[in-house]
Amino acid sequence: MTCYRGFLLGSCCRVAGGRAAALRGPGAGGPAARPRLGGDGGGRRHLGQGQPRELAGCGSRPDGGFRPSRVVVVAKTTRYEFEQQRYRYAELSEEDLKQLVGPGSAPLRSRARPGLWWLLRPLGRDLSGQLFPGHRRCPSCLFRGPQLALKGSSYSGLLERHHIHTKNVEHIIDSLRNEGIEVRLVKRREYDEETVRWADAVIAAGGDGTMLLAASKVLDRLKPVIGVNTDPERSEGHLCLPVRYTHSFPEALQKFYRGEFRWLWRQRIRLYLEGTGINPVPVDLHEQQLSLNQHNRALNIERAHDERCEASGPQLLPVRALNEVFIGESLSSRMSYSWAVAVDNLRRSIPTLKGLASYYEISVDDGPWEKQKSSGLNLCTGTGSKAWSFNINRVATQAVEDVLNIAKRQGNLSLPLNRELVEKVTNEYNESLLYSPEEPKILFSIREPIANRVFSSSRQRCFSSKVCVRSRCWDACMVVDGGTSFEFNDGAIASMMINKEDELRTVLLEQ
Amino acid sequence: MTCYRGFLLGSCCRVAGGRAAALRGPGAGGPAARPRLGGDGGGRRHLGQGQPRELAGCGSRPDGGFRPSRVVVVAKTTRYEFEQQRYRYAELSEEDLKQLVGPGSAPLRSRARPGLWWLLRPLGRDLSGQLFPGHRRCPSCLFRGPQLALKGSSYSGLLERHHIHTKNVEHIIDSLRNEGIEVRLVKRREYDEETVRWADAVIAAGGDGTMLLAASKVLDRLKPVIGVNTDPERSEGHLCLPVRYTHSFPEALQKFYRGEFRWLWRQRIRLYLEGTGINPVPVDLHEQQLSLNQHNRALNIERAHDERCEASGPQLLPVRALNEVFIGESLSSRMSYSWAVAVDNLRRSIPTLKGLASYYEISVDDGPWEKQKSSGLNLCTGTGSKAWSFNINRVATQAVEDVLNIAKRQGNLSLPLNRELVEKVTNEYNESLLYSPEEPKILFSIREPIANRVFSSSRQRCFSSKVCVRSRCWDACMVVDGGTSFEFNDGAIASMMINKEDELRTVLLEQ
Repeated sequence: MTCYRGFLLGSCCRVAGGRAAALRGPGAGGPAARPRLGGDGGGRRHLGQGQPRELAGCGSRPDGGFRPSRVVVVAKTTRYEFEQQRYRYAELSEEDLKQLVGPGSAPLRSRARPGLWWLLRPLGRDLSGQLFPGHRRCPSCLFRGPQLALKGSSYSGLLERHHIHTKNVEHIIDSLRNEGIEVRLVKRREYDEETVRWADAVIAAGGDGTMLLAASKVLDRLKPVIGVNTDPERSEGHLCLPVRYTHSFPEALQKFYRGEFRWLWRQRIRLYLEGTGINPVPVDLHEQQLSLNQHNRALNIERAHDERCEASGPQLLPVRALNEVFIGESLSSRMSYSWAVAVDNLRRSIPTLKGLASYYEISVDDGPWEKQKSSGLNLCTGTGSKAWSFNINRVATQAVEDVLNIAKRQGNLSLPLNRELVEKVTNEYNESLLYSPEEPKILFSIREPIANRVFSSSRQRCFSSKVCVRSRCWDACMVVDGGTSFEFNDGAIASMMINKEDELRTVLLEQ
Repeated sequence: MTCYRGFLLGSCCRVAGGRAAALRGPGAGGPAARPRLGGDGGGRRHLGQGQPRELAGCGSRPDGGFRPSRVVVVAKTTRYEFEQQRYRYAELSEEDLKQLVGPGSAPLRSRARPGLWWLLRPLGRDLSGQLFPGHRRCPSCLFRGPQLALKGSSYSGLLERHHIHTKNVEHIIDSLRNEGIEVRLVKRREYDEETVRWADAVIAAGGDGTMLLAASKVLDRLKPVIGVNTDPERSEGHLCLPVRYTHSFPEALQKFYRGEFRWLWRQRIRLYLEGTGINPVPVDLHEQQLSLNQHNRALNIERAHDERCEASGPQLLPVRALNEVFIGESLSSRMSYSWAVAVDNLRRSIPTLKGLASYYEISVDDGPWEKQKSSGLNLCTGTGSKAWSFNINRVATQAVEDVLNIAKRQGNLSLPLNRELVEKVTNEYNESLLYSPEEPKILFSIREPIANRVFSSSRQRCFSSKVCVRSRCWDACMVVDGGTSFEFNDGAIASMMINKEDELRTVLLEQ
C-alpha cells in the first residue's frame, strides 16, 4: 500500500528521499484522499465507470487490461548531449569538449588555455544572442565547462550517465517492439501534437522533468502517459514507475496487459487569460536552452505580437498544469530588472533582487477581489502539493517549538513540551499540506506575503476550486510546471480551475 | 519612546504601515536590544565613549551637538526622470512622452499608433543590447509606457510626484545654505567616493532606496548619513527622519546643533570573497537601469575578467550590507536559465522558474560545513530584520492556529484556543524575528529549504556572528542591499560577519 501512497503523492519533487518517505506515511494524502487510495480496486472502479468504450479506443481492454499498439517514447536530453550541442556551436571538437569539461579538476580559467577561452566567445553570441551583454555573460561566466570538474561531473562522468540513460531507453524500445508495438522515439524538439495524436500511449523516458514535458502536450484525458526513470541511481522520479521496471520493462508491459495496475487520474489546472495586452502564445522555456535560432524567436515574437493585438475575451491557454502554476515578477531579463528598479523607486524602493515584489489582485472561488503584494503566487495540484508548494508552506521544527513555547507561556499551560511532541506536530502540520493527485482541488499559496496598509494578507494559503488573479505586475510571467511561460503584466487577468476533462491518465504499478 | 523604537527598527521595509506600527510595540527590538534603546541618553553614552576627538573631526561637538560644514545631498532619480531618459534614448520628444505615458487610460498597444511602436524598436536594442532576444523583450514587452496609464500614473501624475520631490530637495538645500553650510547636490551617477570624502555628512533625499544608496559608499563609521523622505505621502521611509522634518528641515538642523538627538549606530555586514574564479568587481544593478553603453559594459567585463584571473586569498569586498545580503541562483540572464535547465535535468529536473534551487555549503560561527539546497539565503542586520528577512521568516496566524490545534490534539490539552491567544502567539513569534539595528549580530535564514537524503535543513534560521557560504551554484549572485551584485558561482567562498568598524552612523530624532 505504501508504494501506492508514495505514488499517489508523486510529483516533480523538491522534497525527496528520506523526507519524502516520511511524508508517505498514513494520511499523507489527506483524509479527503483516502476513499480513492484503493489500489487496483480503485483502478477497476475507475474503469468500471462506464468508460470501457472510450478506453478501448486507446488500447484498454474491458478486463481493465491495457495493450497499446502505437507508443511514442519521449527521451530526455542528457547533460552530455547538452554539452555536445553547446560545444558544437562553439565550433569545438569532441577533443576540445573532453579537454574543457574535464577530467582536470582545476577550472580552465586558472589554466593557461587562453586560446580556447576566446574561442568560446562566439558561443557567447550564439547562446545569449549578444556580445557580453552583462557581467554574468563575460567569457568566464559564459564558460561553465571547467566548473563541471569542480562538481565532479567530468567528461567521462557525463558520458557514463548518458550511456546508462541510452541503455535504458533501448531496453524500453526493444521491449515494446518485441510485443509488436509500433514505436516512435522522439527528443524534446520532435515531440509535437501530431506525434501525440499518432500514439495510443506516451512513455516519458527520463525523470520527472521529462514526465512533465511528455504530459504537457497530452490534452486527451484518455491517452495514458507513463514515466520510466532512466537514471534511477541519480534521480527520484516521483512521477515514474517504480525503479525496478526500468530494468525489467517487459514485466511492466505484462502487468498492463493483465490489468495488474490501477489508473491514476492526476488532476490538472487549466488557465484562461483575458484583459488588455495579453499574450496567449506560450514560450517553451526549455526550447530556449540553446536559443539557437534568432529568426525563429523573432518570428515567434511577431506572432505573439499579432495575437496580442487581437486578444479579446477569456482565452483557454494550450497547456494544463500537472504540478503547479507560478505567478510572479520575473528576473529573466535585464529589461525587466531595469523596469523593476524604476517601479521600485516609485514604490518604496524594494530592491528587485530582494525577491522582486509582485503586485496583483486575487479572487478565490469567485469571492471579492483582494489586493496582494508578495514574492509570487503558487497554485498547485495534488501532484504538485509535494513539490515547490510544500517548501513554500511547510513549517520548520524550530518554528513549531518556538510557537508552542510562546503559547505555553501566553496561555500558562502545563504543556509537556518534549522533542517528540514537537516532531509529531511538525509532521502532522506538514503532511496536511499534501493531498491526493486525484483530488479536484487547487492549493493556493502566497509566497512571502507583504502586509501593510494597502495590502492585506488575510489568507496565506487555502484550498479552492477556482482562483482568479489580476496582474499589477511590470514584467511578470505565469509559469506552468516550470516549463511553459506566459507574459502576465498589468491589465491581464488569469482564471485557474480544475476540470475533470483535463485529467492526466497515468499508471500506478506495484513495486 | 515608541518613536525611538520605531526608528531603531527602521529598515528599507517590506512590512509597512499598520503592520509595522504593530511591530514597534514594546520588546520589538528583542530583549538583547533593550539596554541600547535609551533614547538621547543612549546617544550621549555613545558620544561619551572616548570618541569626542574623532567626532569633532566630522562636525560633532563635545556637548553631543553636530554642525557639519560640508554636506552632500544625494537625490533620488524620480520615475519621471527615468521615463524622460528612456524616451530620449528612443529619440522621442517630450510630446511623445506625454502621449505614450498617458494621460490615456487604454494601453497604446491597443491604440492605432504602429508608427511609434516600431520607433521604439531601437530602444529595444539600446536597453537590452540585442534585437528581440526573447518573448519578454518583444516591442510590446519592452514598451511599458502605456501600462502606466493602467496604474493611474499618467504623465501628469509622474510630473506631480517629481515636482513634490524637487520642492523638498530644494527646501533641504536652502535650509543648509542658510546655515552657511557648503552643499553639493548629486544624483546617483555623480555620487562617488571622492564626494563622500569631501563631505562631513551625507543627506539622502528620497526614500529608503536612496538611503541605501547613500550609505553604500560611506565606509567611514564617523561620517553621518541622514535620510530625508522627499515623498512622505507615497513612501514609508523607515530609514529617514520623521516625515515632519521633510517640510521643516531647519528645525532638524537646530536639533543637530543642540544635540537634541541620538546617534544610531547601525551595524552592517562585511563580506570577504575567496576561492577559484571569483570576481570581486561589484556590479551596480541600478546603473544597469538604462544599460546605455555597451562599450563601458564590455570594458567593465574585461576588467572583471582580468581581476578574476588574479583573484587569490580572501578579498574584502568594497561594500557593507545595511539591510541584508541575499545569495541565490539568478534568473537575470537567459544564459543562466539555459544552464540551470541543464543542471536541473541532471538533478531531478527542478524547473528553474519554480524558484531556481541554489546549492551551497554553509558554516555558521566556524561550525562544520553543511550541504544545503534552497531558494536562496538571506543574511540580515537588525536594520534589515524588518525587511525581506521578516517576510521569509514570519508565520501566518492561520499556521499558528493549525499548529496549536494539532498540538492540542496530540498532547490532549485543555488549551482554550481563542482568536486572541492565536493573535498574541503569532505577534510574539513574529516580533522575536526583529532586533535592534545596533546589535552586532546577523540573522541568517534559509529560504524555502529543500530537505532530502543529501541535503539537510537542520536549522532554517539562526542568529550568528559569522557565516561562511561555499557556492555550488551555476549562475548565482550575492546581492548586497538589493543594489550591488557579485558573481557567486561554484568554487567561490564568501565569509560574512559584523565588525564594529563598519557601523553606519545615523541620526535618531524625536517625532
